[in-house]
Amino acid sequence: MMQLHRDTRILIVGLGLLGGSYAMALKKKGFRCIYGFARRQETVDYAFEHGLIDEGSSSVDEDLIARAEMIVFALYPTVLLDWVKQYGRLIRPGTVVTDVTGVKSCIIDPVTAALPEGVEFVSVHPMAGREVGGIENADDGIFDGANYIVVPSDKNTESAILLCEDLGRELGFGRISRLSPAEHDDMIAFLSQLTHCVAVSLMCANEDDRLVDYTGDSFRDLTRIARINDEMWSELFLLNKESLLRQMDRFLEQVNRMRELLSQGDREGLREMMRTSTERRAKFDKKKK
Amino acid sequence: MMQLHRDTRILIVGLGLLGGSYAMALKKKGFRCIYGFARRQETVDYAFEHGLIDEGSSSVDEDLIARAEMIVFALYPTVLLDWVKQYGRLIRPGTVVTDVTGVKSCIIDPVTAALPEGVEFVSVHPMAGREVGGIENADDGIFDGANYIVVPSDKNTESAILLCEDLGRELGFGRISRLSPAEHDDMIAFLSQLTHCVAVSLMCANEDDRLVDYTGDSFRDLTRIARINDEMWSELFLLNKESLLRQMDRFLEQVNRMRELLSQGDREGLREMMRTSTERRAKFDKKKK
Repeated sequence: MMQLHRDTRILIVGLGLLGGSYAMALKKKGFRCIYGFARRQETVDYAFEHGLIDEGSSSVDEDLIARAEMIVFALYPTVLLDWVKQYGRLIRPGTVVTDVTGVKSCIIDPVTAALPEGVEFVSVHPMAGREVGGIENADDGIFDGANYIVVPSDKNTESAILLCEDLGRELGFGRISRLSPAEHDDMIAFLSQLTHCVAVSLMCANEDDRLVDYTGDSFRDLTRIARINDEMWSELFLLNKESLLRQMDRFLEQVNRMRELLSQGDREGLREMMRTSTERRAKFDKKKK
Repeated sequence: MMQLHRDTRILIVGLGLLGGSYAMALKKKGFRCIYGFARRQETVDYAFEHGLIDEGSSSVDEDLIARAEMIVFALYPTVLLDWVKQYGRLIRPGTVVTDVTGVKSCIIDPVTAALPEGVEFVSVHPMAGREVGGIENADDGIFDGANYIVVPSDKNTESAILLCEDLGRELGFGRISRLSPAEHDDMIAFLSQLTHCVAVSLMCANEDDRLVDYTGDSFRDLTRIARINDEMWSELFLLNKESLLRQMDRFLEQVNRMRELLSQGDREGLREMMRTSTERRAKFDKKKK
């Protein structure tokens, strides 16, 4: 059974914000064999000059792939799928592969299928990020106290899962937990994709230019995330379509219920919904650090 | 034509957070004849001891009403309506009456009708507040940079409107503007009541106890206002029912549109909504202080 130690050879494919932050955290912990792939040579040079990697390449270096005992894919979901289809066969049996993807059901089976016999894929969602991308914004501080969700499939062995959990601990995550792919996707559809859908819908619902002159904090808070990377988020929405549709329907049901109560002048019904909301939301404040 | 000056006699009816903050701001500006009514004698005593009022009463003191040249009602909407129906007849002709109510169409006509001939009511919505109430939380700093919306009716004279705008300036508001009752109520329905409706609906849509363990900042931001004073907000919702129903329908239309695009896998349609949202939201950041 593989154990994570300072000489474990880890290849990070994709040196953007997350990949770069993974590399930074591991080098700070004293790991001595961190390899990195990036599309652009400048990125590899930057990573090397800043001590984030020990070796790297802007091409698919078969020797580094063969040496790696663990591979972390820090790529957009569709780019990850393309990569494993094209190069997955180069990965040596015995290697443990993991990722950072924010959607799971649509990723786990195709990635697993594209990998050779003996290569195990343990999918992980590290809930960390920044509003800016790129290796120059890499910052291992984003993992501090953050959630690291391991999403095992029925093909995974306990030892590979434990190895990926160890990686999360080494990176400095605050809370390491496990969810099934369906649980994960429903949770994320509700907490992340639905909130973006709500913010975008609010902004699209009113084109009055004077709004900005009268707005208060509550509207600003609700629409902060309405400035959105449309390329990335449309991809995430579509990749998690079934879960997101389900969560949108649950939300629409509640808004329609509130509309109905208001339309009927049912004050007690409105108050009851507000009390439920107040009670549930109070728990979030208690947990806040 | 009445001019606002340091010896203008102003009676504030209701010494809660807003009434107390009005009194504090005016006393700091050197006004010498600030009177206050409150339901409880302790409130009047507190205001007097802290130099917020020059005279006050916990009963409806006819002498103070007769002396007042300007009356500010800092009461909940339904309490305001009850008050003017019961005591409005005591107000002297020539007095200018104003308020702090957050809904307008349902307030202006009944209040105007309850006042004697020669008493003019100019309705105002000062967009300022805190999450805590009561005179002990009074703070004139809440007016700094805030919006002060004057909502004239067709019965108002320009001179009374200007007097109320002067009051807003003396209180220290950042932006003084005018809207018609319908414009005001639609604006507030969208910016304030709809946002609370959305936050409450989000909390009611999912009862999974584990949410709190996985939540990120975007969900926290969207539901901060989901801890809600159900007595006050159910009243506001119902008093602004027609506007709020209209705004809810516009919002529902957009969520349903997004749902449809997602369900059809129309990525370009989703991206277009996201780009509209991003463009509109960007204007809010520019205006932020």
